[in-house]
Amino acid sequence: MNPEQSYEELLRRMKEIAVLGNTAGVLGWDQEVYMPAANAPYRAEQLSLLAGMLHHKFTDPAVGDLISQSESSKALTGDPLSDSAVNLREWRHSYDRSTKLPQRLVEEMARVTSNAQVEWVEARKENKFSRFQPWLEKIVALTQEQAKCYGYKDHPYDALLEDYEPGLTSAQLNQLFPPLKKSLAEMVTKITSSKRQPDLSILKRKCPVPAQVAFCRTLAEAIGFDFAKGRIDVSTHPFTTGLGPSDTRITTRFEETNFENAFFSTLHEAGHGIYDQNLPAYAEASAGRPGESIYGTPRASAVSLGIHESQSRLWENLVGRSLPFWKYFFPELKKAFPGTFDDLSLETFHFAINHSAPSFIRTESDEVTYNLHICLRYDIEVNIIGGSLKAADIPGVWNDSMKKYFGIVPPTDSVGCLQDVHWSHGSFGYFPTYTLGNLYSAQFFDAANKEVGPLEGKFEKGDFKPLKKWLNEKIHSHGQQYRANELCKVATGKELSSEYFLNHLQKKFGGLYGF
Amino acid sequence: MNPEQSYEELLRRMKEIAVLGNTAGVLGWDQEVYMPAANAPYRAEQLSLLAGMLHHKFTDPAVGDLISQSESSKALTGDPLSDSAVNLREWRHSYDRSTKLPQRLVEEMARVTSNAQVEWVEARKENKFSRFQPWLEKIVALTQEQAKCYGYKDHPYDALLEDYEPGLTSAQLNQLFPPLKKSLAEMVTKITSSKRQPDLSILKRKCPVPAQVAFCRTLAEAIGFDFAKGRIDVSTHPFTTGLGPSDTRITTRFEETNFENAFFSTLHEAGHGIYDQNLPAYAEASAGRPGESIYGTPRASAVSLGIHESQSRLWENLVGRSLPFWKYFFPELKKAFPGTFDDLSLETFHFAINHSAPSFIRTESDEVTYNLHICLRYDIEVNIIGGSLKAADIPGVWNDSMKKYFGIVPPTDSVGCLQDVHWSHGSFGYFPTYTLGNLYSAQFFDAANKEVGPLEGKFEKGDFKPLKKWLNEKIHSHGQQYRANELCKVATGKELSSEYFLNHLQKKFGGLYGF
Repeated sequence: MNPEQSYEELLRRMKEIAVLGNTAGVLGWDQEVYMPAANAPYRAEQLSLLAGMLHHKFTDPAVGDLISQSESSKALTGDPLSDSAVNLREWRHSYDRSTKLPQRLVEEMARVTSNAQVEWVEARKENKFSRFQPWLEKIVALTQEQAKCYGYKDHPYDALLEDYEPGLTSAQLNQLFPPLKKSLAEMVTKITSSKRQPDLSILKRKCPVPAQVAFCRTLAEAIGFDFAKGRIDVSTHPFTTGLGPSDTRITTRFEETNFENAFFSTLHEAGHGIYDQNLPAYAEASAGRPGESIYGTPRASAVSLGIHESQSRLWENLVGRSLPFWKYFFPELKKAFPGTFDDLSLETFHFAINHSAPSFIRTESDEVTYNLHICLRYDIEVNIIGGSLKAADIPGVWNDSMKKYFGIVPPTDSVGCLQDVHWSHGSFGYFPTYTLGNLYSAQFFDAANKEVGPLEGKFEKGDFKPLKKWLNEKIHSHGQQYRANELCKVATGKELSSEYFLNHLQKKFGGLYGF
Repeated sequence: MNPEQSYEELLRRMKEIAVLGNTAGVLGWDQEVYMPAANAPYRAEQLSLLAGMLHHKFTDPAVGDLISQSESSKALTGDPLSDSAVNLREWRHSYDRSTKLPQRLVEEMARVTSNAQVEWVEARKENKFSRFQPWLEKIVALTQEQAKCYGYKDHPYDALLEDYEPGLTSAQLNQLFPPLKKSLAEMVTKITSSKRQPDLSILKRKCPVPAQVAFCRTLAEAIGFDFAKGRIDVSTHPFTTGLGPSDTRITTRFEETNFENAFFSTLHEAGHGIYDQNLPAYAEASAGRPGESIYGTPRASAVSLGIHESQSRLWENLVGRSLPFWKYFFPELKKAFPGTFDDLSLETFHFAINHSAPSFIRTESDEVTYNLHICLRYDIEVNIIGGSLKAADIPGVWNDSMKKYFGIVPPTDSVGCLQDVHWSHGSFGYFPTYTLGNLYSAQFFDAANKEVGPLEGKFEKGDFKPLKKWLNEKIHSHGQQYRANELCKVATGKELSSEYFLNHLQKKFGGLYGF
């Protein structure tokens, strides 16, 4: 085979792997949304069989050979932005990572995390960190070993970040996070001590679920989620899953006395969904084989967790919690829930959905406090993986940081350092991507506003197309053509900075809380 | 490997194949029920990939070797009713069949039927048999070649029946069908000429869909469909699919002015579902490894299409269209649809849901006429596969038979010989299983009634448990322990006969129409 033939064969194999991967996606979606709970053990067996097949197909040494043969061709890799060069770069990256871990380590990690999750559930229930601690110690040791196998330049944590935000390093995060923390902590103090506070009782007003369902569909459609190529369903934890080039599914959940939950999780997931729906699916004319399906290849896949999160956060917060958005939708809301909100001014409503206050639980926090929760976890992760912090010391460090950032201390570890599932999965390096998503979202929004704005006037008229079009062109259409860092520079002209996010918060929350 | 080890390895592989097969099942269910239509091409690609994997895994020569090695053990095959002997018998049967067709023939058949389906749709639309005829000729020629590859003793049609009703021969059907045809045709004449006729306008009374949904769930639950291990959803064509040991899904469809459609298709599919839900899932103590999961093996699978259809028909017709059933449910129905049926007597309602009349379309026919539609098709199939009938002569033969059995002639081929999709799929041998299902259902019902009845009095009180228990024990629990013929003898003490079915019709329709 010449390099071009090798690439063809590689492409064929990789598309087959993607098709199989999306099959597992359908099983996963079904499990969360419609499957009878009693069938869980059998479904687990199915998913494990598919995972094994996927791993086997992807780590086949023939795949490594095909990548090497393809890489030798200038025609395929000469232009680093070409479809073939992008695909080969990312396949190389994934192949090397997936073949670097010894089987023993993979199996040991699977065994330990499987037990650790059970222990974590119990430890949280019993509020007993000491029960989880030995498992966390084992996971940290195995994760450090993983990092060594993967290799890194400066810090073992960098090797882990690669799984979630390829190309990102702890050095960059160490630049980005401290000033962010400082500003956010100051904002928290100002908000807490402000005399102006929203009327939170509004958020508990009864909204019949069928009307919420209809309104959520309206919201998702308005911002550009395409229901001809997607669905919205109900699940315990909202999520988005791409199951095919014309099949993107989002989920949400409904509570009669908590409309906020359904509305904003719908906007959030629809933001993820709009990204997936607008990834390229067919090769461009410039790629040599125009019209060919490229769905499932890196060129047609999302960049990173951080960039994905930027899309959900942008629609949820920058758009969906803005005053112009509700200038358009508040009258619609009043119509959709007759009598429920008639007595309220737009401003009262807008303040309520932008409430901020220190809290213990990350997933229940708000635009201002959320990233402080993340910074706290990031510091712990870097230090424990780096070896300067011991598992046993986590509860103390956690509570000290809570005191420092929020002025409150969790009454129990269950609502403190035991609240998140991530560490019991061995997912070190995941948390920072949430904050990156928030920072990217504000920087993208700012750039879009400068280029095709002012957007606010358009939102007031219910017109979200210019923003979506900008995102389609500047973010979605690129797939993995650029790594996240680079994409940010190409799309906004600047390196990622927390400036835009902090400006956004200062403007909105400063206005609402008066600082 | 010794034979026992070979059997273990075979079992492992076959269970893996079953898990993969049920994965395709989930994709198929999702496609019919929830998938955005725009994703159809990608889903087709997924299903084709899985079908290829399944075929590849099942026809692996190593599988053939493992079967042969296992067969050499007396411990495994000595007792023909043991789990291992049953599994080996059926795996041998399927393996031999799947490896007997040359690749060229498989591919040619796939290509031709794929085109033929498109042409059939157009031919039916244009009412132009000549458009479909050349495709049908090609399919028949390929099917005859298939039959030769499979091998047969008396008639090539027997080789095809094996796909749907293993062990059945055309010689048996030639015994069974002619007296059935004669009696049914006589009944049709009596019904047509009867002065008593039901009031069909009742069936068009408006029943709001949400109330229909709730009532259908009540019906399915009452007869024993277990919603903790199953679901009911909506699809264009109702179907049942088993996706795991605790996951059986049925579908139905709702029309506001056609409650009959939803009610009886729900009972029909719930009947299929109850069979699937009560197949054995774990090995019995006597099988040597009690408690081991055997889901997906022949020992734990349904016997044949005919036996499966007997379960749906039994609940739909023998139970669901009986007077005792509605003695219990008619008051419930009146409550569920307030004001809609209050003016009706039970007898008027019961007569309406048991209307019978000659009609052109098989799928819209009734308990009396249905099997005549099948006999007509069977005669054509046997003769065309045997070579004594030409495709070009089908429309003439069809219309002559319609005249003979029903006294009516289809005005067009679209509502005549072009109405069914089966031949364009190359599915010769499928049709008879519908009638077998009806015959089995009446024979099983008769046996159950003799052993644990009288059942009528129980139905009047809404008690369907004794019948379900009898079916669980006599039919469901056996899986493929016996072939259909044998199972019938074991369960009822007699060979399959049309006597029970004809007695049932005579009793019910004779009473209603007065003959």
